[in-house]
Amino acid sequence: MTSNIKIKKIDKDISSIVIDEPQTYNSLSFKNLSDLLKNLKKLDADKNIKVIILEGAGKGFSAGHNLKEVRGLKKKEKYQKLFNLCSKVMLQIIEGRKPVIAKVHGAAFAAGCQLVASCDLAYSTKEALFATPGVNIGLFCSTPMVAVSRKINRKPMMKMLLTGEPIKANYAKEISLINDCFAASKLDSEVLKVAKLIASKSNLTIKIGKQAFYKQLEMPLAKAYAYTSKMMTINMMAMDAREGISAFLEKRKPKWKNK
Amino acid sequence: MTSNIKIKKIDKDISSIVIDEPQTYNSLSFKNLSDLLKNLKKLDADKNIKVIILEGAGKGFSAGHNLKEVRGLKKKEKYQKLFNLCSKVMLQIIEGRKPVIAKVHGAAFAAGCQLVASCDLAYSTKEALFATPGVNIGLFCSTPMVAVSRKINRKPMMKMLLTGEPIKANYAKEISLINDCFAASKLDSEVLKVAKLIASKSNLTIKIGKQAFYKQLEMPLAKAYAYTSKMMTINMMAMDAREGISAFLEKRKPKWKNK
Amino acid sequence: MTSNIKIKKIDKDISSIVIDEPQTYNSLSFKNLSDLLKNLKKLDADKNIKVIILEGAGKGFSAGHNLKEVRGLKKKEKYQKLFNLCSKVMLQIIEGRKPVIAKVHGAAFAAGCQLVASCDLAYSTKEALFATPGVNIGLFCSTPMVAVSRKINRKPMMKMLLTGEPIKANYAKEISLINDCFAASKLDSEVLKVAKLIASKSNLTIKIGKQAFYKQLEMPLAKAYAYTSKMMTINMMAMDAREGISAFLEKRKPKWKNK
Repeated sequence: MTSNIKIKKIDKDISSIVIDEPQTYNSLSFKNLSDLLKNLKKLDADKNIKVIILEGAGKGFSAGHNLKEVRGLKKKEKYQKLFNLCSKVMLQIIEGRKPVIAKVHGAAFAAGCQLVASCDLAYSTKEALFATPGVNIGLFCSTPMVAVSRKINRKPMMKMLLTGEPIKANYAKEISLINDCFAASKLDSEVLKVAKLIASKSNLTIKIGKQAFYKQLEMPLAKAYAYTSKMMTINMMAMDAREGISAFLEKRKPKWKNK
Repeated sequence: MTSNIKIKKIDKDISSIVIDEPQTYNSLSFKNLSDLLKNLKKLDADKNIKVIILEGAGKGFSAGHNLKEVRGLKKKEKYQKLFNLCSKVMLQIIEGRKPVIAKVHGAAFAAGCQLVASCDLAYSTKEALFATPGVNIGLFCSTPMVAVSRKINRKPMMKMLLTGEPIKANYAKEISLINDCFAASKLDSEVLKVAKLIASKSNLTIKIGKQAFYKQLEMPLAKAYAYTSKMMTINMMAMDAREGISAFLEKRKPKWKNK
Repeated sequence: MTSNIKIKKIDKDISSIVIDEPQTYNSLSFKNLSDLLKNLKKLDADKNIKVIILEGAGKGFSAGHNLKEVRGLKKKEKYQKLFNLCSKVMLQIIEGRKPVIAKVHGAAFAAGCQLVASCDLAYSTKEALFATPGVNIGLFCSTPMVAVSRKINRKPMMKMLLTGEPIKANYAKEISLINDCFAASKLDSEVLKVAKLIASKSNLTIKIGKQAFYKQLEMPLAKAYAYTSKMMTINMMAMDAREGISAFLEKRKPKWKNK
């Protein structure tokens, strides 16, 4: 069975996952979510890959769930299964060891907006739109808001949820749903620049750091310090930290062993 | 006993609660807090009302507690009772099923600022001022900061708390204490526009979504996803979600049953 | 043994702690961290001091850990001890009873950036730079991110952590890592102005408020209200609250007893 989730090699250690189903606005159907999860896990385990980019083909980034499919499911157990699978994809992005960058060239709606929010970094064109419009079809964006409300403040979040109206890229940047936005002609090169910069760091260091980041956020302050002090000690005992510090003191470029 | 908390019908399914005690700058006395709580509960239970607006009469929105009353209470138990009642009002706004929009045409200070922060959305005039000035009278804004610190970031919050100085509407928007600010002549119509837009959605969908929103915010990520996936499944089994999705696919306007 | 952490009296009730080791860019070595902790505790206990300023001597604010020292430690236990001590300093700032204001006239990197984030308020020059650059030396800024990620939103935080690149003062203000930035010639006077304003309040009120602030942030909403209602009642029973409220009602300046 062919898949509409495709892996595109971008650079020696950077790969892109492309949601390539323009006819459904890259909808997150059962099949697409399941393939997305598989590919995210695959790249996360691939030793040659240091940074993952996530993008959509055609006009937009992703319109969220496939509503035709959703209408046809009918049974409670099937809906539960769909929303659970979608949550698994989002948790994989957060819990994975590698940075995931959303490259958003068009509309990112509902679960599509959730994907953008879940990524570690996100860049878009100036024309891109973001929305949690579930309220318009009687289905509140309850799982998307889990991701988005952890990236932006509550008043702008509530506005998006209650009105369903899209926000523009510039405003999405202002409220920190995305990191930056560029002219459409520059998006590829700007995202590549950031991806390459991150790929030039030690894989191991990034892995330790990314995983510790999301964990400490859920702890009270004193516990977060106890936990990260321990993680930093583990990081310090690795070869790459010793090499990095020596290189810095000797004013030379470090050579990472990624261990 | 007459009440200075009045309900004003704004539209067929939108009502406003007006704090109408200009002579005390709409202070939140025992009586006013208790009437506010009663009216919030009343509108929340009223099947004909979909959106609640909260506003003040006279020069400002609300100056917070009634200091003359506060001075006279004297006993510890009475203070505890006052602050508990005030917290109950704020929790009612958060835990209620209907969106509450603050319409702020003047100063919102101390517990008045807390009211604005507690509302789901907030709009003000360009001239409106916001402050947590308790520090100036030796009584730190400890309960107001619970609401405000959950809407804005910590450094601007600490500045407000430690200096007691008011901030302007434009800056309040920047730090997301409010959603937007307008010329005084436009405030009524702009708030009505947002209220009508929200009132055009399914009551039931909004109820499920609003309640899930504040609950998931207090959960760690994985638990928040488990919880909202369940809520979204419940939402999906309701008639309005089926109608909304069908209407969308059939390119027609949905007809909400609010069930 | 002489110390490079110096206390400078700024005003009758305001003192500054100066990290004065320009030859290491005010690095946070074992010795400096330990002296910083000692001096923070000393000023926090000093009845004549109401506000603490934290600043660096020479070119920058602080470059973070002393990498020469770090390289030499070698043993796991020593690293653990270093990171624990550093966390203790940060927790002292948060848990102390007096407001701490960071005055940042140059680079604040790694644990130096963590110091800025930990302070209740922070002001800098327009030229100041902020970074969590550990990733560049293979040692992720895992403890610094505990402080910074509690002050700014997650997307800009991840950008800083994954790229290691510095951000400028204006942007640091935008994302609320600092409260404001000024021309270098104005930084001293602007910080003094804020410090004096805060020092003019009741010591006791500020102590109750600051400690309640950070505690309530870690509680779910209903518990936060129960806790702060109790703290506000305690605050209300103090002489300064009674004096403050009376002064306000009698339109005169309050005379604080700080009790």
